[in-house]
Amino acid sequence: MYTYDHKIRVRYGETDKMGVVYHGCYPLYYEEARTEMLRSAGISYVSLEQRGIMMPVMEMHVRYIASAYYDDLLTVRVAIRQPPGVRIVFHYQVYNQDGQLINEAELTLVFVNEATRRPCRIPQELKAMLEPHFAQQP
Amino acid sequence: MYTYDHKIRVRYGETDKMGVVYHGCYPLYYEEARTEMLRSAGISYVSLEQRGIMMPVMEMHVRYIASAYYDDLLTVRVAIRQPPGVRIVFHYQVYNQDGQLINEAELTLVFVNEATRRPCRIPQELKAMLEPHFAQQP
Amino acid sequence: MYTYDHKIRVRYGETDKMGVVYHGCYPLYYEEARTEMLRSAGISYVSLEQRGIMMPVMEMHVRYIASAYYDDLLTVRVAIRQPPGVRIVFHYQVYNQDGQLINEAELTLVFVNEATRRPCRIPQELKAMLEPHFAQQP
Amino acid sequence: MYTYDHKIRVRYGETDKMGVVYHGCYPLYYEEARTEMLRSAGISYVSLEQRGIMMPVMEMHVRYIASAYYDDLLTVRVAIRQPPGVRIVFHYQVYNQDGQLINEAELTLVFVNEATRRPCRIPQELKAMLEPHFAQQP
Repeated sequence: MYTYDHKIRVRYGETDKMGVVYHGCYPLYYEEARTEMLRSAGISYVSLEQRGIMMPVMEMHVRYIASAYYDDLLTVRVAIRQPPGVRIVFHYQVYNQDGQLINEAELTLVFVNEATRRPCRIPQELKAMLEPHFAQQP
Repeated sequence: MYTYDHKIRVRYGETDKMGVVYHGCYPLYYEEARTEMLRSAGISYVSLEQRGIMMPVMEMHVRYIASAYYDDLLTVRVAIRQPPGVRIVFHYQVYNQDGQLINEAELTLVFVNEATRRPCRIPQELKAMLEPHFAQQP
Repeated sequence: MYTYDHKIRVRYGETDKMGVVYHGCYPLYYEEARTEMLRSAGISYVSLEQRGIMMPVMEMHVRYIASAYYDDLLTVRVAIRQPPGVRIVFHYQVYNQDGQLINEAELTLVFVNEATRRPCRIPQELKAMLEPHFAQQP
Repeated sequence: MYTYDHKIRVRYGETDKMGVVYHGCYPLYYEEARTEMLRSAGISYVSLEQRGIMMPVMEMHVRYIASAYYDDLLTVRVAIRQPPGVRIVFHYQVYNQDGQLINEAELTLVFVNEATRRPCRIPQELKAMLEPHFAQQP
């Protein structure tokens, strides 16, 4: 398992008239957190794209547990629990500054060759980075 | 079952650098479609809120099947398949202008009393509107 | 002068915790309105892009006069007041369903050749469409 | 004059199909930067709101000079150049990681009493914080 914590401050424009973060804004938080997770491991998502690999989202499952509010300093915990193949699954838990779990999600992304627009293998550098974290698995 | 089709034109600002609609924009489409579904049945969501009933999203499950592009004229088909209780589940299928299914989702919303911030019963007018569509069910 | 009225329904996700449309959402309304203005005149913005012409925004000036609310049915009036050259200026007035002027804006866009990323002339079809509306001018 | 630099990383969802940050996303950057400017001076915008003071945007003027790209690390320089009264003007300059000026803006906000929805005086703590920076002025 590979885990990373990333902090995000809630913007005013991300709230809605209910006074809480609009449910549709969480995907932006997930995206930012997984980019920073990769960066922390020395992998730049932008450089993957420059080499012709895209990672579109195939599936997203979100459970809203409690509300987030304007100016909250959220901790987005992102985890990779299984060694990825053509697909990679990111697990999310979002905590507010009081340590309360407010949101959980799983996002499945697929590696796609930009030229062919077809699924492709995981980039070698990402595979190498993740392997030590899944040592027990064949 | 109660079904409604709503058309949405994709905005430029809803696309991302991959050239397609950003995966995080679909919740806005779902929201617009269910509001129009209710309006078509004579129910104003804004008037529900004015009477102190909110409908936050508890769970969202999305499958991205194909891309949507700028200026696409999408048909968002929204369906209520089970008679709602404290919760109501909206099923979505999104088609592009070629009739291709590009996206599916289920969103679970809960009726909440704004004053107490606790779950409450489905508003009577919404229950009455839906009942004829679930006649076979007890 | 060329003028077009376009109606837009305010989405829940476009409001903020102040209970009104977030000031940063209006550019999406302006964009949708000018696309529909062009479409009403037989010009598809997406087809301009397919032929290698982009129209990035160079300048935007907005005055917020009154608030817009969730579910408001806004009329976005967009006008071209001067015959465009390399630049084109869109003037906006936004009215709510009570006919109240709530917002005004001017956006200056520039025609850009996608290949060279340099300014280019107005596309011929757009020039031809606009000319009758500026007949007194040489 | 009071100046503050705030860094913002561009999200994928903030880009559009032109491959650059959508022009409508900059207001979110301005909002985040002025909130952090106030926080750096010991003033919490959320606590102003809790005491019934809102600061809606009245006017926004933006000049787009060059593009911002996905994953850019922008520096948003926000300045207050005149001592505020009922209104406060924030001046912005946005630089990319190469030090290039890509965007400039001025936003005028007004202090509003939430209860009466009418303009009100600048909160005392904000006035006291800013005064030393405008010492030469009466």
